[in-house]
Amino acid sequence: MRQSKLFAKTRKEAPKDEASKNAILLTRAGFISKEMAGVYSYLPLGLRVIKKIENIIRQEINSLGALEVLLPALQPKESWLTTGRWESMTDLYKLKDASEREFALGPTHEEVAVPLLAQFVSSYQDLPVALYQFQTKFRMELRAKSGLLRGREFIMKDLYSFHRNEEDLSVYHDRVAEAYKRIFATVGLGDSTYQTLAGGGTFAQYSYEFQTLTDAGEDTVRLCSNCRLAVNTEINNTQASCPKCEGPLGEEKKAIEVGNIFKLGTRFTEPLGLTYKDEAGVPTVPVMGCYGIGLGRLMGTVAEVLSDNKGLVWPKTIAPFQVHLVEIQKNAEEIYKKLTEAGVEVLWDDREVGPGEKFADADLLGLPIRVVVSERAEKAGGVEVKNRATGELTIVSEAKILEIITPNV
Amino acid sequence: MRQSKLFAKTRKEAPKDEASKNAILLTRAGFISKEMAGVYSYLPLGLRVIKKIENIIRQEINSLGALEVLLPALQPKESWLTTGRWESMTDLYKLKDASEREFALGPTHEEVAVPLLAQFVSSYQDLPVALYQFQTKFRMELRAKSGLLRGREFIMKDLYSFHRNEEDLSVYHDRVAEAYKRIFATVGLGDSTYQTLAGGGTFAQYSYEFQTLTDAGEDTVRLCSNCRLAVNTEINNTQASCPKCEGPLGEEKKAIEVGNIFKLGTRFTEPLGLTYKDEAGVPTVPVMGCYGIGLGRLMGTVAEVLSDNKGLVWPKTIAPFQVHLVEIQKNAEEIYKKLTEAGVEVLWDDREVGPGEKFADADLLGLPIRVVVSERAEKAGGVEVKNRATGELTIVSEAKILEIITPNV
Repeated sequence: MRQSKLFAKTRKEAPKDEASKNAILLTRAGFISKEMAGVYSYLPLGLRVIKKIENIIRQEINSLGALEVLLPALQPKESWLTTGRWESMTDLYKLKDASEREFALGPTHEEVAVPLLAQFVSSYQDLPVALYQFQTKFRMELRAKSGLLRGREFIMKDLYSFHRNEEDLSVYHDRVAEAYKRIFATVGLGDSTYQTLAGGGTFAQYSYEFQTLTDAGEDTVRLCSNCRLAVNTEINNTQASCPKCEGPLGEEKKAIEVGNIFKLGTRFTEPLGLTYKDEAGVPTVPVMGCYGIGLGRLMGTVAEVLSDNKGLVWPKTIAPFQVHLVEIQKNAEEIYKKLTEAGVEVLWDDREVGPGEKFADADLLGLPIRVVVSERAEKAGGVEVKNRATGELTIVSEAKILEIITPNV
Repeated sequence: MRQSKLFAKTRKEAPKDEASKNAILLTRAGFISKEMAGVYSYLPLGLRVIKKIENIIRQEINSLGALEVLLPALQPKESWLTTGRWESMTDLYKLKDASEREFALGPTHEEVAVPLLAQFVSSYQDLPVALYQFQTKFRMELRAKSGLLRGREFIMKDLYSFHRNEEDLSVYHDRVAEAYKRIFATVGLGDSTYQTLAGGGTFAQYSYEFQTLTDAGEDTVRLCSNCRLAVNTEINNTQASCPKCEGPLGEEKKAIEVGNIFKLGTRFTEPLGLTYKDEAGVPTVPVMGCYGIGLGRLMGTVAEVLSDNKGLVWPKTIAPFQVHLVEIQKNAEEIYKKLTEAGVEVLWDDREVGPGEKFADADLLGLPIRVVVSERAEKAGGVEVKNRATGELTIVSEAKILEIITPNV
């Protein structure tokens, strides 16, 4: 698309009310706009990133046989009273309608998913079953100071699975863990993300998280120097060895929790009355797992980890456009057409501003490939192609542009 | 997909707490599940319909040059006080955080979209600009008794456009009206949907709606017998002639408002401080339009209008699957593979239930084409192909199945 039509302009200065790198870069580049602390609008470039992340996750979760649904944000108080979380979850937003009836504004969906399944599950033949959604959640977050990393309103992929027994849940849980690893690798965080043993909250002794190493993180983990497991110091800041392989644990590092996978057992299925008849006809309570990834948080984490002092550096898998076509005193329409017709996503900087501003904005936006159309590049033999991540710069003849670009997008 | 894996089962009986045809059919067919009055979960089949409607709308709205964004549901009280709607909009959900600060839970987004644009619009060169979103909205609806037709939580496509003057707004407004007509035609409501002159609320003397004729509607319109305009009786129940062509108006008919297009003038841009500098450098307030379509309401309207006494009758454009492959004591896997490999969306009824139940469920679900694989059909020369809408039934040889099916999906 033409950059001149993109209403969200770049900013030279960091917004005064943001302290985190992800919020500063994403705001300056016009990907997001703060509505209030912990609440952001996704502007056209930002929404394109979110949609790409969503599609990567959807493909992986579909491959686990889970079915996509869309559950409501407004949830009846009764289910939350039943599980005890109406009182215990202190960051739950509660609201009233005109008749003073109270509701929860969902931060999570066990209280909806379990009663929903109870309508349809009756026999062991109905299990296992898994459902998931991409949905906006709400949490009364008091310290929302980390941009997209900690929101009061945030988009989650939440997956819930239901099983006849712990063994079946364990197999599924491990398959989800593998899918999560593929998701984090695809969005560019594979090297910096670790499956991490963490506390189980009120559900269990332990759970697993996925933690991405970065100084912007609010969690602290120690990596096993032998296997790829990490340990959240919330459960272990004195132990010296890995609970999995007994290898030595390294020093404490800051990290962001980009995903979590919980074995919930019967914590919700029991009070919410989900049962099935086993092969002998005996009513039995299924065990349950839940698995979350915050899409905005993941986007914010990529902004933290894959950026440099000039701006964002998107991996091609989630970049809003693959190519930033920068036109310098020479019309780029022909190349724009050629690339878009070949299926390449191109942001065409057709703005009437100077080359310096265009180059700085291209670095700030961080699209994977920059193509400069200028007289200087033409004299050198064509157009200038620059890789944002490596800085590698080459001159490519217009005739060969597709050969160079399309294998890389 | 295999129907046996679809956790949401069909029901023979209507749910006791539903009075509307759309809720009864969609619940019985397993497309939706009621969480509470006016709040529904979209189950796998229902979400597929919503996604198809979303894509049809997105394509049309993109063609108007509007940019997709995602604005938050949590909105600061201040903007709502500024426009006067904090007090005047009586169905606004309000909530508090731990510090007793109040927020609106957005039923609409003028209070977010205008301040957002004010950050970026400064010159006449920045106009016109239009942005839109698919987003979940909330309204404290007291009479939520019509299934998907009137919700307390509902997915909207909302589009906002900003212009230098009334003429430019009018041109855009009329282009949106044409796009809306194409959308309603594509989802199967073209014949029964009328552009309708309606009241302007607090914004203007008049506005336009799109009304679909059905007895389930809560609005009342009169059709011009000469042009295709309708008039909402809220503004005119005595006048005898069409305000556009002066043709006679017919009798009162019930209708559902499936879309609306408003010229807002400076109702929101003025108080919320959006200005641009015109060519002479004079600060000027832009005029604004807003344009809405409720996706769930549209799905519910299709269920009301395009159904019969056996169940739902989806147009192929928004059907969750194109083909219902019904296997009767004979494995249908080969045909399933053949069709899916050709890109046809197939729901394969592989359940271990009798033929009568399978046929009744196929009618209830209402997929456009039913293909029956049975010994009886084989003896007759192949498989049985039935058109859900027309009831037309033919026997097609397995070799020719793609020739028959693919041109129709």
